[in-house]
Amino acid sequence: METGGITYPSGFYASGISCGIKGNGKKDLSLIFSETPCVAAGTFTTNKFKSYSVLWSLNNIRNDIQAVIINSGNANACNGKENYEKTKMIIKKLSEILKIPHRSILIASTGIIGKPFPFDEISSSLENLVKNMGREKHKEAAEGIITTDTFIKEFQIDTGISGRKKEVVIGGMAKGAGMINPNMATMLAFITTDAVIKRDALEKALKESVENSFNMINIDGDRSTNDMVVCLANGQAKNERIHLDTPEYEKFYLALEKVCVELAKMIAKDGEGAKKFIEVVVKGGWCKKDVRRIAKKVAGSYLVKSAIAGASPNWGRIVAAAGSAEAKLNEKKMEVSICGIKVFDGKPVKFDEEKLRKLMYNKEIRIEIDLKKGNFQATAWGCDLTEEYVRINKEYS
Amino acid sequence: METGGITYPSGFYASGISCGIKGNGKKDLSLIFSETPCVAAGTFTTNKFKSYSVLWSLNNIRNDIQAVIINSGNANACNGKENYEKTKMIIKKLSEILKIPHRSILIASTGIIGKPFPFDEISSSLENLVKNMGREKHKEAAEGIITTDTFIKEFQIDTGISGRKKEVVIGGMAKGAGMINPNMATMLAFITTDAVIKRDALEKALKESVENSFNMINIDGDRSTNDMVVCLANGQAKNERIHLDTPEYEKFYLALEKVCVELAKMIAKDGEGAKKFIEVVVKGGWCKKDVRRIAKKVAGSYLVKSAIAGASPNWGRIVAAAGSAEAKLNEKKMEVSICGIKVFDGKPVKFDEEKLRKLMYNKEIRIEIDLKKGNFQATAWGCDLTEEYVRINKEYS
Repeated sequence: METGGITYPSGFYASGISCGIKGNGKKDLSLIFSETPCVAAGTFTTNKFKSYSVLWSLNNIRNDIQAVIINSGNANACNGKENYEKTKMIIKKLSEILKIPHRSILIASTGIIGKPFPFDEISSSLENLVKNMGREKHKEAAEGIITTDTFIKEFQIDTGISGRKKEVVIGGMAKGAGMINPNMATMLAFITTDAVIKRDALEKALKESVENSFNMINIDGDRSTNDMVVCLANGQAKNERIHLDTPEYEKFYLALEKVCVELAKMIAKDGEGAKKFIEVVVKGGWCKKDVRRIAKKVAGSYLVKSAIAGASPNWGRIVAAAGSAEAKLNEKKMEVSICGIKVFDGKPVKFDEEKLRKLMYNKEIRIEIDLKKGNFQATAWGCDLTEEYVRINKEYS
Repeated sequence: METGGITYPSGFYASGISCGIKGNGKKDLSLIFSETPCVAAGTFTTNKFKSYSVLWSLNNIRNDIQAVIINSGNANACNGKENYEKTKMIIKKLSEILKIPHRSILIASTGIIGKPFPFDEISSSLENLVKNMGREKHKEAAEGIITTDTFIKEFQIDTGISGRKKEVVIGGMAKGAGMINPNMATMLAFITTDAVIKRDALEKALKESVENSFNMINIDGDRSTNDMVVCLANGQAKNERIHLDTPEYEKFYLALEKVCVELAKMIAKDGEGAKKFIEVVVKGGWCKKDVRRIAKKVAGSYLVKSAIAGASPNWGRIVAAAGSAEAKLNEKKMEVSICGIKVFDGKPVKFDEEKLRKLMYNKEIRIEIDLKKGNFQATAWGCDLTEEYVRINKEYS
């Protein structure tokens, strides 16, 4: 029995089946279940139009959580308020099958906006969903939450924190966000851990981890109607409870951030139509906000993205994107490198254009910007913009 | 002799020639000249990296202006400070040929970033540029400022304000802004008028006109290194001087705004690879800022743009984009129409999908959003996102 992803921590079970929302036998319904109640934390979309699934979860995240049900193929958003009743009926029925309080269940959805919640499909599949649960079913669950993603996204890590029973570990799964950009395609991530941890510590660790990972691929802070990142901690490692501002908290936070960053990078790599992964590192900044803004602006520039699609060493677009961010910079000092080759240091630098062009045919492009003003650093991720992206989004509906 | 565009007002001359920056005999150097000194107003890019042409013009806009020289094919930006000296030498030489003070000349540039200013090409063509001037040469000038634009952009209008000599009129020309979006492609516009007008009145009229026109196609407020809108008033209509807060000011402002809006719409229609023009009207808002933000967010959404490219009546993307703007809205009241067909009124509306899909094959798509909260209204413009856009920007360098 191979565990991993969301079932890597003790006591978590997963399931992923096809209930008929997507058709063609594709998996579209997933479940995460913990043997014991969990402390939970979550971050939710700030979009004014929140899906009914987000609304339910937002209202229940501070309860002891024991299960999360996720459907793909239907966003359960902007579809009329009778669908909130249907959502609650599904939760109710699942709680009866699992024999847990209905308020200990969260729900997430992703897919087309404005269609009736697929009540019949989900309702008639709940028994089967639960029956299929297993410690080894993490991949099936990761498959049930994707839409236009081309691969499933899972990651797991050991924290180095010892528990009475075992080492504390963390696992997670995610689904991509279309072009991962100002766009409204949904980003979902579910993270599990067997840590014993105080709620405020889990909340802070998740919030900061999301800031430095998913929010660095979610340019301009735009959110879909459905975005959600949830972390469940069931305490089965029996470690000493983790409090804020302790060495254990630091260890836990770094491991959680690593899980979030790795999942975020997978999302960036799987941008719709993407052929290349872009990493933008901005260092030498005088404040955190500014380095973040510049990194996101460059990674989010459609002219930079299309130049990279064409392996074009057009550093002017990078410099112009950086300059257009609402951030302080000294244009006479700023340095820019692409794939390790310096192209700008306050003025154009002579460089081997043929060599750089060849490097830009690689699948991973790293842009480094040094502001030469201080010690703050941030990294943003993205992908190139290809004709394929447009094709996918013209036709998706 | 046919006048129009920037030579529609009295006393203005134009010229547009090829000086060899672009090659293939394409026009790349233009001149606007007024027989008499002008009161001038301008708005300039907020990008931290300003082209040396922008820097010169920014420093001289409050002088009496008599000429504007514009080159295309080279942005004169991020190319090292020796290019500022070269820029000044060109200005100096032109001032000697035109026999006007060098500080009465403005300069604008658009094209590739980071290349040396094409001093030799421009310098050796100045005599020819001036020799070619004529009242009928407005189209040539409009051609000399474009880059990837597929058509020249000119507009002219009568203000209804009588002068001692003639009616006050306004003319203008512009060049497009690539995808017209967060992107760094340059937007330039030059507007001329024969009005007698106070500087503060001209400044205010231009600032507000730009807000409601060019800035409604320049989503998110991002700016290229080179963006510039300049308005010159030479007073040859001999009207009574226009002061702020007078009926004449109102007439002048409305006419100027119309010129700016029409030029902005042409820019939107000519977005790179664009096949369709998008107009987003947001009404019923409770404040100006919010309706502007929502209109720009929807017109700037890449998912909305690609849905429109595919004639897909995917109203969920419109609703999600509106909801993601930093603006107040009541999601239970908001109404959305596409091409005159209501698709959402707080919940999905049944509509004839086949009929709407057919309407969406039109070249002009109008999206109307009614917030049902107040009386503020704003309009934003954009174009669809096509595979062709990506192709153009992969290769442009």
